[in-house]
Amino acid sequence: MANLENGTFKKLDVVVVGGGLVGSLEALFLAKRGHRVRLYEYREDIRNTPQARGRSINLALSIRGRTALREVGLEDHMINNHGIPMKGRNIHRIDGSTYIIPYDSRTKQCIYSVGRNYLNGLLLQESEKYENVERFFNHKLIASNLRKGFLSFQKTDTKEIVEVNADLIIGADGAFSAVRKEIMKQPLFDYNQKYIEHGYLELCIPPDSNGGFQMPPNYLHIWPRGEFMMIALPNQDCSWTVTLFMPFTHFKSLDSEDKLLKFFEKYFPDSIPLIGKQKLIADYFAGSASPLIAIKCRPYNVEDKALIIGDAAHAVVPFYGQGMNAGFEDCTILNQLFQKHHDDLAKILKEFSDTRWEDTFAISDLAMYNYIEMRDLVTRPSYLLRKAIDDVIFWLMPKVWIPLYNSVTFSTIPYTQCIKNRQWQDKVLNRSLLFLGTVTSAVGAFYVYKKFVGLS
Amino acid sequence: MANLENGTFKKLDVVVVGGGLVGSLEALFLAKRGHRVRLYEYREDIRNTPQARGRSINLALSIRGRTALREVGLEDHMINNHGIPMKGRNIHRIDGSTYIIPYDSRTKQCIYSVGRNYLNGLLLQESEKYENVERFFNHKLIASNLRKGFLSFQKTDTKEIVEVNADLIIGADGAFSAVRKEIMKQPLFDYNQKYIEHGYLELCIPPDSNGGFQMPPNYLHIWPRGEFMMIALPNQDCSWTVTLFMPFTHFKSLDSEDKLLKFFEKYFPDSIPLIGKQKLIADYFAGSASPLIAIKCRPYNVEDKALIIGDAAHAVVPFYGQGMNAGFEDCTILNQLFQKHHDDLAKILKEFSDTRWEDTFAISDLAMYNYIEMRDLVTRPSYLLRKAIDDVIFWLMPKVWIPLYNSVTFSTIPYTQCIKNRQWQDKVLNRSLLFLGTVTSAVGAFYVYKKFVGLS
Repeated sequence: MANLENGTFKKLDVVVVGGGLVGSLEALFLAKRGHRVRLYEYREDIRNTPQARGRSINLALSIRGRTALREVGLEDHMINNHGIPMKGRNIHRIDGSTYIIPYDSRTKQCIYSVGRNYLNGLLLQESEKYENVERFFNHKLIASNLRKGFLSFQKTDTKEIVEVNADLIIGADGAFSAVRKEIMKQPLFDYNQKYIEHGYLELCIPPDSNGGFQMPPNYLHIWPRGEFMMIALPNQDCSWTVTLFMPFTHFKSLDSEDKLLKFFEKYFPDSIPLIGKQKLIADYFAGSASPLIAIKCRPYNVEDKALIIGDAAHAVVPFYGQGMNAGFEDCTILNQLFQKHHDDLAKILKEFSDTRWEDTFAISDLAMYNYIEMRDLVTRPSYLLRKAIDDVIFWLMPKVWIPLYNSVTFSTIPYTQCIKNRQWQDKVLNRSLLFLGTVTSAVGAFYVYKKFVGLS
Repeated sequence: MANLENGTFKKLDVVVVGGGLVGSLEALFLAKRGHRVRLYEYREDIRNTPQARGRSINLALSIRGRTALREVGLEDHMINNHGIPMKGRNIHRIDGSTYIIPYDSRTKQCIYSVGRNYLNGLLLQESEKYENVERFFNHKLIASNLRKGFLSFQKTDTKEIVEVNADLIIGADGAFSAVRKEIMKQPLFDYNQKYIEHGYLELCIPPDSNGGFQMPPNYLHIWPRGEFMMIALPNQDCSWTVTLFMPFTHFKSLDSEDKLLKFFEKYFPDSIPLIGKQKLIADYFAGSASPLIAIKCRPYNVEDKALIIGDAAHAVVPFYGQGMNAGFEDCTILNQLFQKHHDDLAKILKEFSDTRWEDTFAISDLAMYNYIEMRDLVTRPSYLLRKAIDDVIFWLMPKVWIPLYNSVTFSTIPYTQCIKNRQWQDKVLNRSLLFLGTVTSAVGAFYVYKKFVGLS
């Protein structure tokens, strides 16, 4: 049990709303500190249910997520037994040819494709090891008084009402958070939700006839097509989860099998034999495109009683692969603050809310930007040139010059600092180009002078 | 009755939620077109109630608001019998001296200080002239199905539930709109609410002993103090409504009579005898500072069934005096669309929602900017120089060069266009300065050459 500084450790009664990835991880952190944790989840126990439609099937785990998992003793298991390393982007041109853009040619760091359900199940399973954690599934939050630490749930099966009181309420209930809706009723709450004009739809590349991967597995595959794109992440069973991102208007216009196939033949011809024509049609028309929302808000707390974390506090678009990682980083930071302030909730919640928002706003902006990079810029010579320059300088000065993607994905440098570093790098490069340009001109002028004037 | 183009005018059943300024004006517009209008208001009839605290007492009416009032036949009455013209800003320095910045030295256009309650009462009174308008006060919206045109109200006095159906629901229920909260449950709704760190508190300068104004009445008085400011607008009874805008932290720190008086003696010494020491203390401690919220959202409609207008759709901070004017302009534009589309709701609501948001986002940004101008920039030589240049060019080319404030306040040019004009003016001025700079340098160089080289 942690932080018995003055011998008066007060065991807190914590309710975590939301038993998804961030909620169940936070429950572990709090349990490890010796607090009583009750975890309430609206859905059924994910360990007993098949994959739900409309939530991404696999995710990219990178260093911020790994750091949090390490703290609760699950990193090695996830990386060694489950995660599939992805060493870079595997770009598919329209003609079916591919090229690779490594994430980190210097130290060969990878991101890992992990199954959402597997990881969520693992976290819940781990929580069973702690006697001070209780899990309640099929409980829907229907009313609350956050200032008083009061919550009222309705059981979705029996319709029974369950009322609970807590010293601390953690809302980790996702982008459409019920806890956040309660916080929103407080005055002075800044809130911004934005749907991008693109939606997504998931398809699948099955394993080959031998049960193996149909594409090189250790990459994130991208079919960048300017205004839209398709990506694929590998699964443990050697299938691929393929996600098509497009404006909703495009999805709407592909309303017949014929139009769909023509579209794929034009833009993603190499994917058709991989997915299978019939499966493509079946999967495409089985669902409909889901929207993508980005949420920025503040403050995250209600006095010393309630706090939102993860997507509930900062849902981001998925293009930097940082949604889960940022949510897990919330847990790491929160744990550090519990340590720093000896479980004094007023100080912990205030500092978390006052300091964390800038970094989450930053990753939100980066994720928006990265969509353009992924679907468009990666195909451009200017991008590839900049990437090459970045990589060379990074190789020469690994402490001083960390390229943006690497600092976001392979370091725990605060997101705002990652952006500042990039701005500084831009400035240095621009000045160097100016200097190079000036030197080149001067040398050129001298040459001209020597040749035509000096010799006359 | 309007728009009987093909002889099949369909009288619509419209429910307007909110009987404030924008709601009661919109009811008049719809009544004039021959539709049945039921106006539901949460509060009591404003004609029977004293001024409510926490809502501004008087407002600046300018051309966009006047244009709308003209359409319903109330402009002349408001301007001639009630509004107090304000010809410019009357700036109070700390030493008590003042100077005037006219709004429009060319054509002497004014803005008008009008009483909120008076104008609201007048609009409601006018609606009594129409048999097709019914008014229901003390009705609180408690549930709805906007897609079906269904609303459920609870009477705040008898607690009776009233259910109504409508062809069209107009939500004009202000910044904390209940109708907007319902729209927010729809997917793909973008929403942004932001509280600024400044709050406001209203004080009062009473009439002098003869019942006259204590300050020159035909100005908007401003005490700009950099980080904060105070303003005053004249009332019909020769009093002034004084509004102090400051960061909440400042309000919080002025927690004793002594601190309050010291603060006023330091920053607003000339206002103390005008307000009266005892009245200042009494009024300041009677209330507490209110927050200021800005809201941007879209879309404004739910299919062909519901629409939000005014503050419900786009609450802005009050620093451009455009909140009411923009809301009234919504009514004008909506009326034009009813005309254009012959009361076809699907087309009207879609076009309103698709086109209006850009202008309301623009005035929101302008209002945020104007706060800095009002509390800080107006005291700077650079601002006064730019204002002088703008005024001279405006005087020379009144069609081509309309300064930003004038285009926003004295024209009905769309707000986005006002900003574009200003950006173009900035560019022209910058180029002219560059040109002037170059010419001056050249002339200077020529002079130096003549003097020192040419004569040698």
